[in-house]
Amino acid sequence: MERVPTGVKGLDNMLGGGLPSGTCILVLGGPGAGKTIFGVQFLYMGAVEYNEAGLYVSFDESPLYLRRNMECFGWDLKRLEKEGKVFILDLSPIRAFPKEIEASFVKMNLIETIRNKVQEIRPRRIVIDSLATLVVQFPDVVERRNTVIKMFQTVMDLGATGLMLNELQTTYYRGRELQVEEFLAHGVILLRTLEERARILKAIQIEKMRGVSHDPQLRPYTIDKNGLKVFSKEHVFVPEYSIPIRSKK
Amino acid sequence: MERVPTGVKGLDNMLGGGLPSGTCILVLGGPGAGKTIFGVQFLYMGAVEYNEAGLYVSFDESPLYLRRNMECFGWDLKRLEKEGKVFILDLSPIRAFPKEIEASFVKMNLIETIRNKVQEIRPRRIVIDSLATLVVQFPDVVERRNTVIKMFQTVMDLGATGLMLNELQTTYYRGRELQVEEFLAHGVILLRTLEERARILKAIQIEKMRGVSHDPQLRPYTIDKNGLKVFSKEHVFVPEYSIPIRSKK
Amino acid sequence: MERVPTGVKGLDNMLGGGLPSGTCILVLGGPGAGKTIFGVQFLYMGAVEYNEAGLYVSFDESPLYLRRNMECFGWDLKRLEKEGKVFILDLSPIRAFPKEIEASFVKMNLIETIRNKVQEIRPRRIVIDSLATLVVQFPDVVERRNTVIKMFQTVMDLGATGLMLNELQTTYYRGRELQVEEFLAHGVILLRTLEERARILKAIQIEKMRGVSHDPQLRPYTIDKNGLKVFSKEHVFVPEYSIPIRSKK
Amino acid sequence: MERVPTGVKGLDNMLGGGLPSGTCILVLGGPGAGKTIFGVQFLYMGAVEYNEAGLYVSFDESPLYLRRNMECFGWDLKRLEKEGKVFILDLSPIRAFPKEIEASFVKMNLIETIRNKVQEIRPRRIVIDSLATLVVQFPDVVERRNTVIKMFQTVMDLGATGLMLNELQTTYYRGRELQVEEFLAHGVILLRTLEERARILKAIQIEKMRGVSHDPQLRPYTIDKNGLKVFSKEHVFVPEYSIPIRSKK
Amino acid sequence: MERVPTGVKGLDNMLGGGLPSGTCILVLGGPGAGKTIFGVQFLYMGAVEYNEAGLYVSFDESPLYLRRNMECFGWDLKRLEKEGKVFILDLSPIRAFPKEIEASFVKMNLIETIRNKVQEIRPRRIVIDSLATLVVQFPDVVERRNTVIKMFQTVMDLGATGLMLNELQTTYYRGRELQVEEFLAHGVILLRTLEERARILKAIQIEKMRGVSHDPQLRPYTIDKNGLKVFSKEHVFVPEYSIPIRSKK
Amino acid sequence: MERVPTGVKGLDNMLGGGLPSGTCILVLGGPGAGKTIFGVQFLYMGAVEYNEAGLYVSFDESPLYLRRNMECFGWDLKRLEKEGKVFILDLSPIRAFPKEIEASFVKMNLIETIRNKVQEIRPRRIVIDSLATLVVQFPDVVERRNTVIKMFQTVMDLGATGLMLNELQTTYYRGRELQVEEFLAHGVILLRTLEERARILKAIQIEKMRGVSHDPQLRPYTIDKNGLKVFSKEHVFVPEYSIPIRSKK
Repeated sequence: MERVPTGVKGLDNMLGGGLPSGTCILVLGGPGAGKTIFGVQFLYMGAVEYNEAGLYVSFDESPLYLRRNMECFGWDLKRLEKEGKVFILDLSPIRAFPKEIEASFVKMNLIETIRNKVQEIRPRRIVIDSLATLVVQFPDVVERRNTVIKMFQTVMDLGATGLMLNELQTTYYRGRELQVEEFLAHGVILLRTLEERARILKAIQIEKMRGVSHDPQLRPYTIDKNGLKVFSKEHVFVPEYSIPIRSKK
Repeated sequence: MERVPTGVKGLDNMLGGGLPSGTCILVLGGPGAGKTIFGVQFLYMGAVEYNEAGLYVSFDESPLYLRRNMECFGWDLKRLEKEGKVFILDLSPIRAFPKEIEASFVKMNLIETIRNKVQEIRPRRIVIDSLATLVVQFPDVVERRNTVIKMFQTVMDLGATGLMLNELQTTYYRGRELQVEEFLAHGVILLRTLEERARILKAIQIEKMRGVSHDPQLRPYTIDKNGLKVFSKEHVFVPEYSIPIRSKK
Repeated sequence: MERVPTGVKGLDNMLGGGLPSGTCILVLGGPGAGKTIFGVQFLYMGAVEYNEAGLYVSFDESPLYLRRNMECFGWDLKRLEKEGKVFILDLSPIRAFPKEIEASFVKMNLIETIRNKVQEIRPRRIVIDSLATLVVQFPDVVERRNTVIKMFQTVMDLGATGLMLNELQTTYYRGRELQVEEFLAHGVILLRTLEERARILKAIQIEKMRGVSHDPQLRPYTIDKNGLKVFSKEHVFVPEYSIPIRSKK
Repeated sequence: MERVPTGVKGLDNMLGGGLPSGTCILVLGGPGAGKTIFGVQFLYMGAVEYNEAGLYVSFDESPLYLRRNMECFGWDLKRLEKEGKVFILDLSPIRAFPKEIEASFVKMNLIETIRNKVQEIRPRRIVIDSLATLVVQFPDVVERRNTVIKMFQTVMDLGATGLMLNELQTTYYRGRELQVEEFLAHGVILLRTLEERARILKAIQIEKMRGVSHDPQLRPYTIDKNGLKVFSKEHVFVPEYSIPIRSKK
Repeated sequence: MERVPTGVKGLDNMLGGGLPSGTCILVLGGPGAGKTIFGVQFLYMGAVEYNEAGLYVSFDESPLYLRRNMECFGWDLKRLEKEGKVFILDLSPIRAFPKEIEASFVKMNLIETIRNKVQEIRPRRIVIDSLATLVVQFPDVVERRNTVIKMFQTVMDLGATGLMLNELQTTYYRGRELQVEEFLAHGVILLRTLEERARILKAIQIEKMRGVSHDPQLRPYTIDKNGLKVFSKEHVFVPEYSIPIRSKK
Repeated sequence: MERVPTGVKGLDNMLGGGLPSGTCILVLGGPGAGKTIFGVQFLYMGAVEYNEAGLYVSFDESPLYLRRNMECFGWDLKRLEKEGKVFILDLSPIRAFPKEIEASFVKMNLIETIRNKVQEIRPRRIVIDSLATLVVQFPDVVERRNTVIKMFQTVMDLGATGLMLNELQTTYYRGRELQVEEFLAHGVILLRTLEERARILKAIQIEKMRGVSHDPQLRPYTIDKNGLKVFSKEHVFVPEYSIPIRSKK
């Protein structure tokens, strides 16, 4: 099976090379986990290292702020946009749509808009940031399922590989309510923030990846000046009885 | 009582030979647990080792993707389909049915379609992947119960042995809400993903199996290049005070 | 007070001889706990050892499957039915009643049917398997309470001793929502499945038994080739700090 | 302040003599905790040791079964009824009232009936067993509050001392939803069943007792051949690290 | 800033002298925690030691019972009432208002009544016991917020210092749903009942006190023959691994 | 990227200099955590140390009380208001708006009022205290999302840097329901109150801060006579097995 490297060091190791080509992968994370950074890194590396065109569908952030926020990683999005390697589709105005506009009309319109853009620029990589704004309008489970399916089909119909970013609702102790998207997607990557004895740890987990063998364990990751970086050979270490080594407040 | 071997090593040991013939067995698992792999392995082994014909009713995945995803296990579904040993009934388009179509009409139609196909090809093994798409349209408990019962009867009326795959909603700490299907099925197998101190463990459990003696304990399993494999003599080990042996991040 | 032995070894010890005669006892358990086995054992032993006639009201399973599933314990139900010692009232078709039939009509009809059969064969022992199918149609607490009360009266009006089997909804950590039937029944027996450090343990508990002294502790039980067996002198042992003695996976 | 001894050894110690005269005390307990036994013991001892007449308002159990169940403690209720020292008001038929009868009519009627009986026999002690059947018909919090208040007033208007028995909904881990009656009653006694490492412990707790000094700690209690008995000098011991002393199953 | 001593030893230390003058302080506690005792102590000490007039608005208890229950602390309310230093406004009859009376009419009427009484006697200290009866009629969050705000304004408009007593809904493990009143009040004092290893501990906590420096820690308190007493220099000690020193039951 | 120092020692270290200029930062905290103090400190330091004008939009507290409560930190708001460096927009009367006024009218009106004031005085720093009063009127998730977005835009349209204060609903054990605002804001700072073994600890955490590198760990903070102070080099220490060093009650 053909693979699409993510551009996130260590993650491609966990995947055995990269994401399966032509699939929809769900990336879930809480606030501050690094979903957007992951999405942009996926397109940036795809453009710079593999010469693959990418489409970024932005629901929550205007392109202006998006470009600015990514500067700290040294990613010059404006240049790639000029070179036609990255295209940002700005759907952020839609957030402010008054409720009077029929939900189904909104749904059809947004998905149409994305579909048209995909057919126009034929990207190899697509990022949807984020599913939440779209599906939050469909509290009904059946409609939510159908909307997500349509979104997935829009991405895969042209054989592109898509990252769908979404909000990870928090864990109850040791469990959480699984989202319907997790069962429908071909793969699911979780960007988790663990808290153990008041110490914050970031961990990445491949919850599911159909058709390819992968590392199922939680691995630590950080966000540094180059973006996301996964330590794929190291385990997340959650001590329960270690000797406290930090000074007391 | 006649037995139907699952084709999953170690699991047939736990069952004392195999599943009871002519029953409906519920297989529950979270995303990435291996439900679909289990279902396909059941039909593949049934065809190759026991020459039993099987029907795969696919609600969530198109046959194209299903065949591709199973290649990594060396299972050539297309060949078996040509030989008439495996038949894939593609009901995945139904996922996108607009809500305007009466739920009961959908229910009757789907069950009719499955019934007709079963009567036509008379399989010995049937897999429904997955119940969720069907029952998610019936939030009412009574309707859900009745739909599941009809589905079970469709499978058993011709004396076939059926695996019904379904989504396992996650555990609250030490407990979860049981599904009505668990009380109605003849047997229930759980594909569980445990997380202990940030370490992921896969464990299989026979929660219920009427009429046959079986191993009730959680046993570890993996998904390797040959499909699912259960370690039926080993216990899942959940240490609480072991010495940490992995290097710290 | 006159006693009715259950036929489950060890449990009669816990009860000080047996159940109080002429009462309704609620038996709650999760899937695979052994409720049905317990119910049949109660009637089988009652017939074979005490020559008492019994009525089995089956809501969830057809008599055909019920007889087959009990064969592994050496219980020949068909023979006892011929001898008029056990009678199976098959109400399983009712599960598939479309919702259009008035709930109250269903309720009255089912309870009438049971009442008529009880008056006809005058059993000393009655098992209702299970209450869930009946009461799931009455989400309203007041109606649920009333339905259960009518069911109890039907059993006790002729001085029979009844086991009402019902589904045990699972524990949240250290607690669960109590069912109204638990407060109304004369006695409540729980067939619990504990999970401790991934090890499954079956435990029986007499939560309540009015009018007789009884053992309130959790005791271990198994299901072997003779049915349910309780170890009434042994405690369920839940280690928290024991040395792990099983090999690691 | 004048005191009314409960007749439960050890509990009167915890109360500093007995319940405050002329108040309404709520007694909460789960199934099998011993609420009814407590209520009957309160009236029995009141009649036999203090020559005080008592009224038992029974919502859930018919007098026939009530008398029979209390025989094992050596309490001959029938004799006390003949001597006019105990009166049982049987309101158990009301449980089966169809829902069509106006809830408010039921409420007014029941409270009227109780009020008339209280005025007729002028008891010094009153037991309501149980509040649940009455208030379960009033899911609305305001109505529930008002109904309970009316019930309390009925008891106190003639200067009697009342025990209102009610169902204790179970604990979530370390907490539970408090009932409005707990804030309205003058005193609250909890009959709790603790479970620690699969070992069942019964513990009594005076959650509240206005106007008198009392022991607030959980104390162990048992139900033996003489009724309830509280060990008021001993603490409930919940070990967390004790050496296991029971043989393993 | 001017301070108003509470009269509860130890608490005034925690507050750095007393409550800020002219504010509304919320006092939350469960049943039996001592809310009413705290409220009366606040007025009693204010009258006796500072010659400040106080108004007690009683929603839940009649003045007759209130006076009687406070006798055990040696507080002669009747005498202070005669001297015009304490006034009890009896709003307890309102509890029994049938639901047919418009909720908003009730609200306006009650607040009017309180406002008139405040303007008539011009107290320096006010206690509302309790908010629950008032706000339980307004399940709507916006109305509840507004009602509470009106109640606060009524108290502060004349520069009085007010204690609003309210019911503390219990903790889920390690957390609870915060009430809107907690965010609106100037200060919040919690009277908590902790339970650790079956041992009951009472602890007071100043959750919030705007404008003044205060002790935020949990401190133990008791209710003895003089009312509430706080041990402001001692910490609540919750052992987790202490050697058990009490005799076993 | 240009930075805006918060004026809270230690926090600016954690941020690498200060907040990103021209963004909306959400500050969440429970009652007593110090949200308001943080907000005022942000404006006070901005005015005094950086000569930046600030606008304080107060929904919950009248300016009179606000000024008084801040005196204990030595912050003379009145003087700064005279100098035109701080402006307090009093929207607290709105809290008492009867529900009859259309919610959408209220929303438009409030946001209009704020927008007009912002355009009039052109502040560099804005504090909204608090979002809760605004959004509590919009239980509908879509409306809530849109209202928050409008509020954010109002702040950023003139290039100001805004702190939006909001109530932090409490943690279930180890998790909580995330608010939609957390996903929409550019940054999120949590003022958390931890409770460990009955000891209260205040900890600050930067949950998210787009576009800048920051310290993600929980750090202790206090509120002393100078306002909030963060100990950015020290970890919050949550002992699990430390020897108890405080005297027992």
